[in-house]
Amino acid sequence: MGNQKNINQYPRRKFLQNSALLGSAVMFSGPIELLANQHLNIMASNIKAKGYAGKHENGNLTLWNFERRPVGDNDVLIEIKYSGICHSDIHTIKGHWGKQPYPQVPGHEIAGIVTAVGKNVTKFKIGDKAGVGCMVNSCLECESCKKGAEHHCQTTGFTGTYGSPEKTSPSGISQGGYSNNIVVRDHFAIRIPDNMDLKHAAPLLCAGITTYSPMMQYKIKRGDNVGVVGIGGLGHMAVKLAKSKGAEVYAFTTSASKVNDIKSFGAKEVIVVDSADKLKPWKGKLDYMISTVPYAYEMSGYIDCVKPYGNFTQVGMPVNGALSINNFNMIFNRVNFNGSLIGGIPETQEIMDYCAKNNIHPQIQIIKAEEINDAWNKVVNKEARYRYVIDASTF
Amino acid sequence: MGNQKNINQYPRRKFLQNSALLGSAVMFSGPIELLANQHLNIMASNIKAKGYAGKHENGNLTLWNFERRPVGDNDVLIEIKYSGICHSDIHTIKGHWGKQPYPQVPGHEIAGIVTAVGKNVTKFKIGDKAGVGCMVNSCLECESCKKGAEHHCQTTGFTGTYGSPEKTSPSGISQGGYSNNIVVRDHFAIRIPDNMDLKHAAPLLCAGITTYSPMMQYKIKRGDNVGVVGIGGLGHMAVKLAKSKGAEVYAFTTSASKVNDIKSFGAKEVIVVDSADKLKPWKGKLDYMISTVPYAYEMSGYIDCVKPYGNFTQVGMPVNGALSINNFNMIFNRVNFNGSLIGGIPETQEIMDYCAKNNIHPQIQIIKAEEINDAWNKVVNKEARYRYVIDASTF
Repeated sequence: MGNQKNINQYPRRKFLQNSALLGSAVMFSGPIELLANQHLNIMASNIKAKGYAGKHENGNLTLWNFERRPVGDNDVLIEIKYSGICHSDIHTIKGHWGKQPYPQVPGHEIAGIVTAVGKNVTKFKIGDKAGVGCMVNSCLECESCKKGAEHHCQTTGFTGTYGSPEKTSPSGISQGGYSNNIVVRDHFAIRIPDNMDLKHAAPLLCAGITTYSPMMQYKIKRGDNVGVVGIGGLGHMAVKLAKSKGAEVYAFTTSASKVNDIKSFGAKEVIVVDSADKLKPWKGKLDYMISTVPYAYEMSGYIDCVKPYGNFTQVGMPVNGALSINNFNMIFNRVNFNGSLIGGIPETQEIMDYCAKNNIHPQIQIIKAEEINDAWNKVVNKEARYRYVIDASTF
Repeated sequence: MGNQKNINQYPRRKFLQNSALLGSAVMFSGPIELLANQHLNIMASNIKAKGYAGKHENGNLTLWNFERRPVGDNDVLIEIKYSGICHSDIHTIKGHWGKQPYPQVPGHEIAGIVTAVGKNVTKFKIGDKAGVGCMVNSCLECESCKKGAEHHCQTTGFTGTYGSPEKTSPSGISQGGYSNNIVVRDHFAIRIPDNMDLKHAAPLLCAGITTYSPMMQYKIKRGDNVGVVGIGGLGHMAVKLAKSKGAEVYAFTTSASKVNDIKSFGAKEVIVVDSADKLKPWKGKLDYMISTVPYAYEMSGYIDCVKPYGNFTQVGMPVNGALSINNFNMIFNRVNFNGSLIGGIPETQEIMDYCAKNNIHPQIQIIKAEEINDAWNKVVNKEARYRYVIDASTF
């Protein structure tokens, strides 16, 4: 952080006028590159980046050198320190949700340090901790955007952090967080409080907000019986978040080996669902239930656990989105089935601040870049405990 | 009705004490049977009935002579005048919803005249118009039953009007309304106002209440944009009922030939969905939507028509209840998907009275018993306009 601090002593505009490379480039380039590139104006030229990319549907991620767009007037450049691994990364790159452009760098749980800011940016200054979640742009003008639901942008839709068409990106698509830096419109970067460790901040930006948002939407409250189905990266955050709101949390998992962990996260009871019969005692008992299971599964017995007219939210996204639902269950259980997609920027900021204030953080395992492919296999095999976070210094 | 009126001049208790056969039996037996059976006490002995029954999964319904239980202290005997044909009858008898006992007489839209009452019955007197819908018993003691949601009885579950195990029934299962009479616990019979024609009353007891109940649950109100998917027996009632509540009704059908009819039922607009593109202009436009489609279909484009956080209710019940739902749609549309099953007895009475008061009645085609099998084929082929009602005098 040495150079960073020096730079911060410059008046910000003057710093920008003088071209920003001197210090900030240190943050994303090694000393040799710095010498070679020192006259490069990151406000005008593409920025070198390296990361792990999927190159086709099948096969491992491999190191890829690519470029980010120059830092625009409303952009920030973030040197990535940590990047979480989400099951969505796997589904996307493997084409489970539709055909993809390649090479594509996944990753939408990004935490790092701001190393350059565009001239219009007031939200961040160099040296700030900042994060990026699942989106990097939207119109910011429609009704949804104006009320902070940028993920439901009604005009352009939102630009996903990776794999979305993006004219400004040298590769033509947005490139995600399994890399050493990212350029992002300031509005879509999240402030990370000083007391929040970056490695813990990263998973809040998808696993956290994706479970937090529907629980707030459906107003879980103190004393509610809240069920969580699937206790992985998202599910374990749902347990912690629901518990922090005063709910009695009932966790449903197929992994008996997770029971003690899940209790330590705050679950009142952990139900190991090794047969459909295990669900029967819970019929109509829960005020609310959230499922993070990212595959199609027999949902009906779980949905039946919710009280009549309660809500069951499916945030896990199966292959091609396809789920089966049985209307014989639905006509009797009278439960509302709904889906939920991440959260807007204000709410993402809210959960970041909430977790910092309440000392809530994900249970993580730090890995090196070269371990990504192995980690992906473990995620699919339910071996993650509970979120892999890549140390971006290893790219 | 001649004998009926004479009987009504007896004090009710005296009539019962003297054994009820004399007059009421006239209503369900021909003169020859009357002579043969005139000492038979319908309060103590089984009651002869005839109807059309399914005998196995495949094949036509055929005439079947069977017996009803004697009229118990809390029962009424109804001479059936009209009986509606519901797609559920077809699904049930053909085993689409699970293996069935046979012979089984379907029919749960029953309207007729009370011809005998048990000694505890105060709700009806002989000569009253009465109807029976989709259930004939429940515990009446649990929380659900006590609040008038007998269809969600928490102890025994409800006894369906046909095909449910029923100890008191000579055939071991309940037998439905495609017949000339029915014995039913008084609580489960619906009073039919004098000004409601019996032939119009019958379809209200399933098609009416099944669409009315969720629309009341989800509080459709004046000025709401209400969508109805599938304009058959249930759907056309949904259009009429929603219109009567002041909603702007948008009807979605695959049958172009129904457009003028549906407009005459009160729909503001009829959308002939001959391609998925036809749904796109309606995305997010409707406050509420009800689907009566009794088969699995591509629901997602329809669900998308509801505004965020609105409700989409599927009352049509596909083969084995199995529906597909796409979570990519659900996470963006934010609609609540739910099912709904008929309605409780108080609410069924409510819709009967409401329709009588507001002159709302189904669009029916009267058929003879011998036309039932042909009518079933027409229902499946979407040729019904819009509810077949059997003239029970033709059994």
